[in-house]
Amino acid sequence: MNTLNSWLDIAADSDFSIYNLPFGVFSVRGGKPGLGVAIGEYVIDLYGLAALGVFDDLLPDREVLNQPYLNDFMALGKGVTAELRLRLQAWLCDTHSELYRHQELLFEQKEVSMHLPVKVGDYTDFYSSIEHATNVGKMFRDPENALLPNWRHLPVAYHGRASSIVVSGTPVRRPWGQVLPKGASQPVFQPSARLDFELEMAFVIGKNSQLGKPIPIGQAGDYLFGLVLFNDWSARDIQKWEYVPLGPFLGKNFASSISPWVVPMEALAPFRVTGPQQQPPVLPYLQYEGEQNYDIALEVGLRPEGGEETVISRTNFRYMYWNMVQQLAHHTVNGCNVRVGDLMASGTISGPDPHSYGSLLELAWAGSRPLQLAGGESRSFLQDGDTLSLRGHAQKNGMRVGFGEVSGKILPAMEG
Amino acid sequence: MNTLNSWLDIAADSDFSIYNLPFGVFSVRGGKPGLGVAIGEYVIDLYGLAALGVFDDLLPDREVLNQPYLNDFMALGKGVTAELRLRLQAWLCDTHSELYRHQELLFEQKEVSMHLPVKVGDYTDFYSSIEHATNVGKMFRDPENALLPNWRHLPVAYHGRASSIVVSGTPVRRPWGQVLPKGASQPVFQPSARLDFELEMAFVIGKNSQLGKPIPIGQAGDYLFGLVLFNDWSARDIQKWEYVPLGPFLGKNFASSISPWVVPMEALAPFRVTGPQQQPPVLPYLQYEGEQNYDIALEVGLRPEGGEETVISRTNFRYMYWNMVQQLAHHTVNGCNVRVGDLMASGTISGPDPHSYGSLLELAWAGSRPLQLAGGESRSFLQDGDTLSLRGHAQKNGMRVGFGEVSGKILPAMEG
Repeated sequence: MNTLNSWLDIAADSDFSIYNLPFGVFSVRGGKPGLGVAIGEYVIDLYGLAALGVFDDLLPDREVLNQPYLNDFMALGKGVTAELRLRLQAWLCDTHSELYRHQELLFEQKEVSMHLPVKVGDYTDFYSSIEHATNVGKMFRDPENALLPNWRHLPVAYHGRASSIVVSGTPVRRPWGQVLPKGASQPVFQPSARLDFELEMAFVIGKNSQLGKPIPIGQAGDYLFGLVLFNDWSARDIQKWEYVPLGPFLGKNFASSISPWVVPMEALAPFRVTGPQQQPPVLPYLQYEGEQNYDIALEVGLRPEGGEETVISRTNFRYMYWNMVQQLAHHTVNGCNVRVGDLMASGTISGPDPHSYGSLLELAWAGSRPLQLAGGESRSFLQDGDTLSLRGHAQKNGMRVGFGEVSGKILPAMEG
Repeated sequence: MNTLNSWLDIAADSDFSIYNLPFGVFSVRGGKPGLGVAIGEYVIDLYGLAALGVFDDLLPDREVLNQPYLNDFMALGKGVTAELRLRLQAWLCDTHSELYRHQELLFEQKEVSMHLPVKVGDYTDFYSSIEHATNVGKMFRDPENALLPNWRHLPVAYHGRASSIVVSGTPVRRPWGQVLPKGASQPVFQPSARLDFELEMAFVIGKNSQLGKPIPIGQAGDYLFGLVLFNDWSARDIQKWEYVPLGPFLGKNFASSISPWVVPMEALAPFRVTGPQQQPPVLPYLQYEGEQNYDIALEVGLRPEGGEETVISRTNFRYMYWNMVQQLAHHTVNGCNVRVGDLMASGTISGPDPHSYGSLLELAWAGSRPLQLAGGESRSFLQDGDTLSLRGHAQKNGMRVGFGEVSGKILPAMEG
């Protein structure tokens, strides 16, 4: 890898280095949203740049950059999206570029609003961390047989709700719901008392597949546009009462939050690593080649209202038992089709030790060992006013490729 | 109710009587799809009619009728959609109307193609027939305690896949998947051997709600645009191996089929009936007023390749334990939002007797009593080449309001 030097001043620890260049949707002072790319403290206005004619040979229509979502741009394919990104990278290192001459197209991130980057068609949530699935199984089922029989044979998943996916910064209201009090036989209706987060990552689909035609695992990578941080907010008490036999529903679908910048797979390629060995061996349609896990350091911060933030978990995306090409091959093996803008989340990412768990449920072990926060408070579940933030970045040989953060503040439940 | 007499010749047993006037999306000879209304053997071309200026006082833009989906039209609200339908009804009875003068705007149904009528944002499947839930519980769990503890307290539901919803007539390919053979500890990968249908109805959302704001049950009706027939194709063997603990996934998401005509709630109002008594009493947010069930006769036909059709089930939508306003109030009680075009299916509709069950799983009791077909064949599950059709209609005081049908033919699995 050559070292790239930009004429722009970029902090060494910036998530948005010259090696990253993630895509998002931004607006300035209430104006029309359009596509942007993050670099250092700035956002590059892609539509403004396109007005200079610099993408005319690449794009069928400049208007694809003047949209409220990335979908139409992603649908042009990696031949276009990856090439556009490489041009930006070159121009950011070239003082003779149009971009250098037009620095008015760089907006400070702190002065723009970020929007939900993708119009999500279908959202699927996997359950692919063996540590998380084991922890949940130990708490709620049999500690000796924590994993269910199917878990090592297929990447378990369920369909989630697309309408309630929101961008980082959107507050999350504590949901009401039915809850079965301990020892009771009749449910009560109340605000959730066991509100939790789930640390996840999610990939965005950048290419349509055809109904009835599975995506072979060797081609699955072509369908992955990029990755975001994902918080699968969960109301554990609502979920517990409702989820047998058809899975989570109201315990999850009140909100899920994603980070505003979609980091393209090209930027993450240097951080590929080998995944855990899978035992027993998986069926042929799930056998993959090469390194399909990613070394992405993740952390979770919890800040009580008016207080300071405590980092309550540090883990890594590399621990995932099932990787993304396996997830996509499995999802489509029955002929289910995917569409540009579909979102597929990893499931809670827990690491092997108790400080690397990806939910309060696990970190405080179902409330049995409350977490101590820096300010003296403790938490078993989220309280009103808490702000929960997920952050992630990959780093290697002086290159840093980060995701920024996804954060959300808990608002009190509506009046009953 | 006044008797309405149309100048158009409409068969007495037509599903598409003057009292119905359902909305759909059609095209003629490969042309651009647009909105239509079914009447007798015909489709009224709404965009063509709009070109005469007859809706100019009603629609902000005629182009809303020149779309590939009903969504933008539905989003105009019932003030517009119900009024437009009433005008058509009046014009169809008036030989001085523009429609009478422009009968070239009536296309024979047999010469048009029908399309998926709605762009589905999120699709939810409920599980609201007590007979179905009881049958499944008896077969797979405890015959003495067939219903799970939560079932009578909330309308159980899960999120399904929107991308693979197809319109009637679309063939359905038998899916491959992981299956656990009886007595085995390792799954095998094979085409599903237990392919089934599920007789359901689904309602289409015609109004957006706001994230964080529940829809009170008294207002839920405002959000219901209309109803379709829905076949939730199911691969029972794939589902059985995958569904614990997060619910059905690949056993369902390879395809779901809907009927092309959306029957508006206004047309169904005369067929409202009282639903089953709910015991124990439901929580206040699920308590409703008035008649919220609908008397809609349903039947299922199965036709083997080259053979004749056998009607294998006759039942009625009125049996549903949980009604639509309860389903919608529950779905949003945690703040989950709904959007125009969302689809919410009822779950399998089974009646009280064995000839009224809504799936082969129940009709053939998990394969233990194969169903005899008219041509001499028998079925426990669907075979390649089978065509499965769901039909439904309401009838009362000389008024008939029907749904036509949703049908699909099973194609053999892809080559391995």
